[in-house]
Parts: sequence; C-alpha cells; structure tokens
Amino acid sequence: MNHAEWVRTELSEIGRSLGFVYTPAKEIEERHRKLRKQMEAEGLDAFLAHQKMGRFYLSGTAQDALLFVPVDGKPLLMVKRELERARTESPLEHVVGLKPLRELPSLVAEHAGKVPRVLAVEMDILPAKEYLRLQSTFPNSKVVDGSGMIREIRKIKSPFEVDLMRKAGDIANRVYQEGRNILREGMTEIEFGGLLVAAAKKLGDEGLLRVRSFTYEAYSWHVLSGANGGIVSQSDSPMGGLGLSPAFPVGASRKVMKAREPILLDFGICYHGYQCDETRMFSIGTMPPKFADAYKACREIHDAVLTDARPGADCEALFLKTLELGKNLGYGDSYLGPPGLQTKFIGHGIGLELNEFPFLAQGQSYPLEEGMTFAVEPKIVFPGEGSVGIENTVLVTSQGCEILTPIDMEIFEV
Amino acid sequence: MNHAEWVRTELSEIGRSLGFVYTPAKEIEERHRKLRKQMEAEGLDAFLAHQKMGRFYLSGTAQDALLFVPVDGKPLLMVKRELERARTESPLEHVVGLKPLRELPSLVAEHAGKVPRVLAVEMDILPAKEYLRLQSTFPNSKVVDGSGMIREIRKIKSPFEVDLMRKAGDIANRVYQEGRNILREGMTEIEFGGLLVAAAKKLGDEGLLRVRSFTYEAYSWHVLSGANGGIVSQSDSPMGGLGLSPAFPVGASRKVMKAREPILLDFGICYHGYQCDETRMFSIGTMPPKFADAYKACREIHDAVLTDARPGADCEALFLKTLELGKNLGYGDSYLGPPGLQTKFIGHGIGLELNEFPFLAQGQSYPLEEGMTFAVEPKIVFPGEGSVGIENTVLVTSQGCEILTPIDMEIFEV
Repeated sequence: MNHAEWVRTELSEIGRSLGFVYTPAKEIEERHRKLRKQMEAEGLDAFLAHQKMGRFYLSGTAQDALLFVPVDGKPLLMVKRELERARTESPLEHVVGLKPLRELPSLVAEHAGKVPRVLAVEMDILPAKEYLRLQSTFPNSKVVDGSGMIREIRKIKSPFEVDLMRKAGDIANRVYQEGRNILREGMTEIEFGGLLVAAAKKLGDEGLLRVRSFTYEAYSWHVLSGANGGIVSQSDSPMGGLGLSPAFPVGASRKVMKAREPILLDFGICYHGYQCDETRMFSIGTMPPKFADAYKACREIHDAVLTDARPGADCEALFLKTLELGKNLGYGDSYLGPPGLQTKFIGHGIGLELNEFPFLAQGQSYPLEEGMTFAVEPKIVFPGEGSVGIENTVLVTSQGCEILTPIDMEIFEV
Repeated sequence: MNHAEWVRTELSEIGRSLGFVYTPAKEIEERHRKLRKQMEAEGLDAFLAHQKMGRFYLSGTAQDALLFVPVDGKPLLMVKRELERARTESPLEHVVGLKPLRELPSLVAEHAGKVPRVLAVEMDILPAKEYLRLQSTFPNSKVVDGSGMIREIRKIKSPFEVDLMRKAGDIANRVYQEGRNILREGMTEIEFGGLLVAAAKKLGDEGLLRVRSFTYEAYSWHVLSGANGGIVSQSDSPMGGLGLSPAFPVGASRKVMKAREPILLDFGICYHGYQCDETRMFSIGTMPPKFADAYKACREIHDAVLTDARPGADCEALFLKTLELGKNLGYGDSYLGPPGLQTKFIGHGIGLELNEFPFLAQGQSYPLEEGMTFAVEPKIVFPGEGSVGIENTVLVTSQGCEILTPIDMEIFEV
C-alpha cells in the first residue's frame, strides 16, 4: 500500500485506539491568540518556531518541522518529516512539505504575501550557525529573540493541559506504589531505577524528560541511597548522586542498597508530553532518626510553601521564606545542599519542559498566577551520609493550590 | 563532614569500587595534540568548548564547565558545578571554579597571558544568544566556528575508546539474549521496551543516547511490531514507529504484539559515554516468508558493506552500492523506507554520539580510515505491514572491519 494513503486512512484511528489524545483545534487557536497578542505588544511581524516543544504547543504535532506564525494571518507548518503524519496530528489548516530548506523564504512569502520586517526566533536554543544562516536568508528582515515570548505564553496551563499532567501524576502514584513491591535489600540503585522505568513505561510514561537547554540532560532514574545521596554533581540540584560513570555522573549507580539508609527517589513522569516531578523517601526497614527528622522538616517546608502559594504570592518571597524556615528548623547548613553548593530555588515551573515559568527562586520576583504549575522540592543533604527530600507538582488555583501528584507522603518503608 | 573534603578523599575510590573507568592522562594528552594540530592548521588561537561530549572528550569529566584550550599553552577547565568532583575525574592540571560567568574573560586572560585573537566555538550547537554574548565579552577577538574541528578529531577512536564500545556491545549482546526470555504474545511493545531498559540498566547501560543536535532526541526503546514497523516519523530513519502520543511519536507504542508478525528491535546501549547501536528481528513463532526473505536481503546488504569496508573505501560509494543491491534483490521500492521517504544513508559514525563521522551516505565522499567506528543498518519497510532490518556497530581495522556487537544474527524466534 502507498504509505501516504495508509497514513491518511488508518494512522489516526490506530493512534486513537491506543489512547492517543490529539490537541483540539480550539486549544491550538487559543494558544495562537495569546501568541499574537504578545507579538503585537512586542512589535513583531512573525515568529518562526524551531524548538520541538514550542512547535508542539502551537501545532499539536512533534514531527520535524518549522512553524511560521504571522501576526496578522494564519500559521504555516512546514514539515521536513513526516508530512502526512503531521497532517493527521495537527489541526492547523496550512501544513505543507519543506525540502529543501532553501525553499523557506519563498514558502513564507507566498503564504504571507510579504516578507516579515521583524522576525522572531528562539535565540536561547537556536544554534548560532542556524541563526546566521536565517539572517542571511532573510537579508531585509530584522531577526530578533522571541524565546521569552513563547515561554511567557506557556506559563499558564489550560484545563486540557492540566488534565494530561494529572494523568502523569496518576502514573507517578502507581509507579511509587509499585516501588514498594520492587525494592529489596541487596539490589543496586540502578537495578531499582531500571525496574521503575519498566513499570512506568508499561503505564504509558514516555520516559524522556525534556528541558529547554542545549546542554542539560534530564532522566528519571534518580535513585540515591546512603552516602550517594550526599554527592553533588553537574545538575542544578541539591544532590546529583554518583551515576554510572564519569560520562554520566548523576542519578542511580551500581551501589548496593542496604537496610536503614535513606533512599531518595526523584522520578519524573511524562504523559503525552506533559511532565510531573515528584520525590519520596524509601527505606528498607526503619529509617534512622537523623534522616526521618530531616524528612519531617522537608515536609514542613513543603507544606508551608503550599499554604502560601496562591495567585499574587511573590515567587522569590516564597523561596526566601523557606531559607528562614530551614534555618529555624536547624538545617541552615544542609538545606538545599552542602554549604557553598546550596541551590537557589525551591520550585520550578513544569509542563512540556522541566524549566518553565515560574521559578520559586532567588531573583525571580513576580506573582504566582492561577493556572501555573510548578514542582516544589525541599531537600536536605548530609555529605558522606545521605540526603532526604519531598517533591510534588502542584497547580495554582483561584484560592490556593492543588497537588497533581497524589502520592502517599509518609516514608515508604519496605 | 565538609563536602569538598569528602569528595577529595573518598569519591574517586567509591567510583572505582563501582567500576568507574577514568580517562587516563595520556589519552587526554593525545586528544589535545590532535586538537592543537587542527587549530594550527586553521589559524586559531584558542578553542572554547561548551558542548557536553566535546568537553568530556577533552577533559575526562562531564561536570558543568567550559574548557578553554589555547593553541600554545595548557588547557583551562572552568567548572560551574561541581568543582571538586571535576578535579577527581579530570587529569587536566588546571581546573578552577567559574562563577559568575562574567569572570570568564579575566580567567582566560590570566591563564593564557593574553586575549585570543581568533577564538573558535561550537556554532553548530551553541545558541545564538550565547554566541552574541560571547562575542561582546571578547570584543577584540574574532569568534569563529570550531565545530568541524572537534568532530574531525573525534572520528578516529583510540584503543581505550574502542574497548569501552566493545563493553557496550557485550551489554547489547546480553540484553538481546535476555529479550528471548522476556518477549511473549500479548505483551505491548512498550512493556517489552521497558523490560529491556531494565535489563540493560542492571548491566550498566547509561540509558541516555546522545546526538549532536539541538532538537533531535534519541531513545533506546525502538520496538516496532507488525504494521507499526511501516510507520515513518520525525526521525531520519527508514521507519519511526507509532510511539506513545503525538508528543512522542516514535518507537514503541501500546500496541499488543502478536504471533507471526515481524518485531524489529533497534536498541542502542551506552557504556561510560560510548554507544553501540544494533538491530535484530524478533518473532513470536515463525516469521512469515515475506519478512524472513526481506531480512535475508538485509543481511546480504549488511555483509556486502562489511566485505567492502576497509581503509580507503569511499563512504558515498559504499552507500550507493547498497541501493543497487537493494534493487537487484527486489526491494527497490522498500529499501530504506517507503517511496519518497527513503533515507539517504546506510551507516553513521558512532562513539560518544550517534551522529559522528563517517556517514556512509549520499554526498559523503571521503575514505574510511582505520580506527573509525560506525553502525551499518540496512532496513526494508512495507507500509501497512511491517519492517525488517539488521544493524551492527563495527570498527574499521587495518585490513577490513570488526563487529563490536557480537549478537546472534539469526531471527530471534521465541
């Protein structure tokens, strides 16, 4: 059978029968409305979206493509691979093939009826070489940075998006419960991590965690036991763990897990592109009081943030208040990392990526808004001994906030 | 305990006890010798390495850092996080802290005794914003592209590197054997994929496959059964599969696997940063003749490439010859993808990343050299029905080539 024909007639049905949720046209239209409003405010004629999750947000497809959005016309999705599939996935009206790349200016001019004077691209991730090529492809256009804009419009989640995050949270809950059955003394951290990956995938976890960055790598198998929990690494996290080698020096290692040591499990889940992030503590037998007490302090800090988190609350103030609280609880030197290596945030916006707005962090003074989603993660680190922490993903509601990761908050003792 | 002290006294011992291999000083020195030679040839004063695997190659650590390499002096590793750990992992002599980033020019000038006139950076991946910031940070330097150079010096693997790739191949072999025990009728593709991930991680697979790209994502759970094997997707691959959602439209899906359909397993492994890539066919019960015959054709094409592959063989010619062979074997319309969507390569260099030199591909006319490593992957696609293929990672030796993925090449019938 002809591949294009097969895709047109059968593929979306196969997808639907296997649980695929396609982004509704109304959802995409609303996102474009927000984008156009930003473009007008910033005096932009058009936006050319390169980055995968930005394109997905605005088109409903993650196929390899470029998305051209004029401020005063309909968007044009130009697909490198695979065109027919993009047409089944995206509710956009104008979806065409793009190859070779040199056709870009003529495709754009033909569609828009003119060449944009001010063209925004995502300069926070677009490689310098591509940027310079693009500037020479559009010699009469001013190519400017539109990365703030695309991040801005994504900071408030729609009910459609929250629903997918809630499903990610449900998967997380089931994976952590499954962890109780999997964990046993003598298992290595990475074996535990791998079996949790298997459990999560079976439930629909997409497994790749996404970060808007050209160099930061996320992963789900963040299992840190005993002294390994006290190890800091490359990541902007209170503790990174040992990892498997100098080439991958973060997360679970081949260390054997023993009874009565803290086992920190920070295991993100991704469902239909939407992520949730959560941390709980496991212990084989009773967790020693030093760590159980520190975990109690983390819960107290976590609860305090959620008590204050509501529309209008200042993100930096929320963070700074936890520093005070950590100190008052007796963890000034270990809260958010060892001295000198303490991280400067208590929460990060989350959705299609792990580093969205808002950041509950130093220097991030702006209000929380209804519809924002973020992960809050107080952690306490004892070098050479271990670490503890709790993390939930929450939605800011009109009155306060709601936890999207409804996992038992007691220590998982097995 | 003080964290820095704990890292200095205990961390590398803990790593070694858990199988960490640290890059020897002599290995790093040889890499820098090759780099300096390229820099001299290209008239560069210095190279500033941003990209993670490039830095790892030249420093032995994947901690978050920038690496400054002057053409006529010693390299300087400037570490954002985590400094003490980078010092235990890297054999470089000059390893210092870098924060805040504005200290970069003074650190460089102090170390090198001068400001570089011509400074190379990796413009193929460095975001435009970072590039422009760097150019304004070094206003009197000419900032040029050094990405070709770092890719060029990495194309020939040392015995140290080949040894790690061989270990990745050994893990792959054990994972495929384990696949025989795991696969059963009624299991979904993603469940099979997840259990293989668990088996691989237990053996030391790092799980993240790396690609030099700002938008391409690699993953190991590429399990395609029956009609799903006929689906093309965003990736530059003959077939992409259905995936789990429009946000992750590649690889294993929730489709239930049935008896007597082709099950393609393309499962890359990463050990100490070094990858191998391999594909085999599975079948529950006997594979129908149409697919078994096509698989035989793939093996024939695979064997023909390996027969010709030796130092001096032209990479484009190796690819073009397989097009002829595919056609002669009766698969002109299905070899490397459905008509109009056929990929233009039969092999890709592999090492720390999946898209290294050489490419056995259209337009890539240059000779193979001893010490190159590449994956060769003939595949045949029948839209609406399924696909078959074989893939091995090989090393170019003085006389020919050697397979680094010693997995049984018969169909895995269970």
